[in-house]
Amino acid sequence: MKKVHIVGLGLLGGSFAKALKKSFPEWDITGFDSNPEHLSLALEMGLISRSLEVPEKDSAVVVLATPVDTLFGLLVETLAQVGPDTMVMDFGSTKGELCRQIADHPKRNQYLAVHPIAGTENSGPAAAVTNLFDGKVLIICEMEKTDIHLKGMAYDIFEAINMKLRFMDPGDHDLHLAFVSHLSHVSSFVLGKTVLDKTEDEKNIFDMAGSGFASTVRLAKSSPAMWAPIFLENKKNVLEAMDSYIEHLRHFRKMLAEDDVDGLKHNMREANKIRDILDLKE
Amino acid sequence: MKKVHIVGLGLLGGSFAKALKKSFPEWDITGFDSNPEHLSLALEMGLISRSLEVPEKDSAVVVLATPVDTLFGLLVETLAQVGPDTMVMDFGSTKGELCRQIADHPKRNQYLAVHPIAGTENSGPAAAVTNLFDGKVLIICEMEKTDIHLKGMAYDIFEAINMKLRFMDPGDHDLHLAFVSHLSHVSSFVLGKTVLDKTEDEKNIFDMAGSGFASTVRLAKSSPAMWAPIFLENKKNVLEAMDSYIEHLRHFRKMLAEDDVDGLKHNMREANKIRDILDLKE
Repeated sequence: MKKVHIVGLGLLGGSFAKALKKSFPEWDITGFDSNPEHLSLALEMGLISRSLEVPEKDSAVVVLATPVDTLFGLLVETLAQVGPDTMVMDFGSTKGELCRQIADHPKRNQYLAVHPIAGTENSGPAAAVTNLFDGKVLIICEMEKTDIHLKGMAYDIFEAINMKLRFMDPGDHDLHLAFVSHLSHVSSFVLGKTVLDKTEDEKNIFDMAGSGFASTVRLAKSSPAMWAPIFLENKKNVLEAMDSYIEHLRHFRKMLAEDDVDGLKHNMREANKIRDILDLKE
Repeated sequence: MKKVHIVGLGLLGGSFAKALKKSFPEWDITGFDSNPEHLSLALEMGLISRSLEVPEKDSAVVVLATPVDTLFGLLVETLAQVGPDTMVMDFGSTKGELCRQIADHPKRNQYLAVHPIAGTENSGPAAAVTNLFDGKVLIICEMEKTDIHLKGMAYDIFEAINMKLRFMDPGDHDLHLAFVSHLSHVSSFVLGKTVLDKTEDEKNIFDMAGSGFASTVRLAKSSPAMWAPIFLENKKNVLEAMDSYIEHLRHFRKMLAEDDVDGLKHNMREANKIRDILDLKE
């Protein structure tokens, strides 16, 4: 029997609890959430056996699944609370700043920096699903800095819940994520806002929106409490991605304004290549 | 038994043929497609009984389901080919220009301007599905200009395949569609291109793209042959929608650059309201 403690019982933390319970029914999973409603819902749903403000010293694993702006403080606090055989990991969507801040911590080797590429636009314990991580990629940064036994245990857990491990430098992680994840969230939030601002008082025009619109703005439903800190933590890269996106939009706009049908079609055929890449992933 | 002739046997035309066959198995459905491969595939799939370059004079309905830049020429040609009891309708995604161009045609009352709010990112006869139109909205413009008996027949067909009719001015249609449909296609095409340009030769970084990215760029798989003409035909409105979108992006960028976390969260909470609207539609 291992003890696992999860801080933050939302979509990721809650789904991780469910996945662990399925693979390791005998383990004792405790947890905490600073939102009292989420905490009592998590208890009611049986995501955790008990609420604990401080993890037990002999916990095997402590998972930090809270917004990225809380992670550094929480990580330092947690490392001070746990014994020498506990591995602490965070599920944050940005990795560079946290890895830099924790670099010289005396217990750095008890920390593993990971990012599960898994999520939905929903949040809170009610959004947790058992198979959220199943078949998904888990990015691990600076694996060489984590104690070999602790990280072996972590890999066994990830294998049991069927995740695909990828190893990456934290700076590369943050730059790439700005383009393949954070930018889609920005474009979706801003698209939702643009259309809502235009259509005020005319909600019936959404009758005219098809499934394509719903797909493109799906991420605009995401949690501001989770995403504002991600954008700010990865500000440099997100600004670079946004600038590139705005530049591409201006180019597209220019071709349209000039009736450059060949240019537009060429550009769209280039964009069509995303189909091959997404199909490969499926 | 009625004769229906469909020009353009792609996603919309092909799906309409399938839906008609299901509701009216005794009708004779003929068709044409200028792409020989699509035409033979449509015959092979049984979407149409025969290929005809010119509709029969006693056709009840002729449907034009080709790219919007071909519709005016095709409509004039078709009105010249059919008898006085044939209704001709187009499925184009823009309505203003075509309604203006055809306004003074002597057979204007045999034409019905419609736009089914239905589609997927796929194209060609292979993409056709029987229930594409089921439960979807059909916008009808200038219904008062179409002969009452012909339009009665059309309404019966749309009711049989379970579409919800909405009536709208062609100019309002084009402006609203620019925001709730055409802009999502632009944002998706441009997002796909931006990310592909950044990541060239590093296809493995798409490992890091989650389901959110796939949802946001889904429309970037759409057909350039279909969409370039829509953007050009609705240029004024699409440019207005793009300018508003770029302006909203620049505002979001400014808040991020200035660490305005309250502004960002407020903006994202506003965008979250899209959830209520989309949930209402479901």
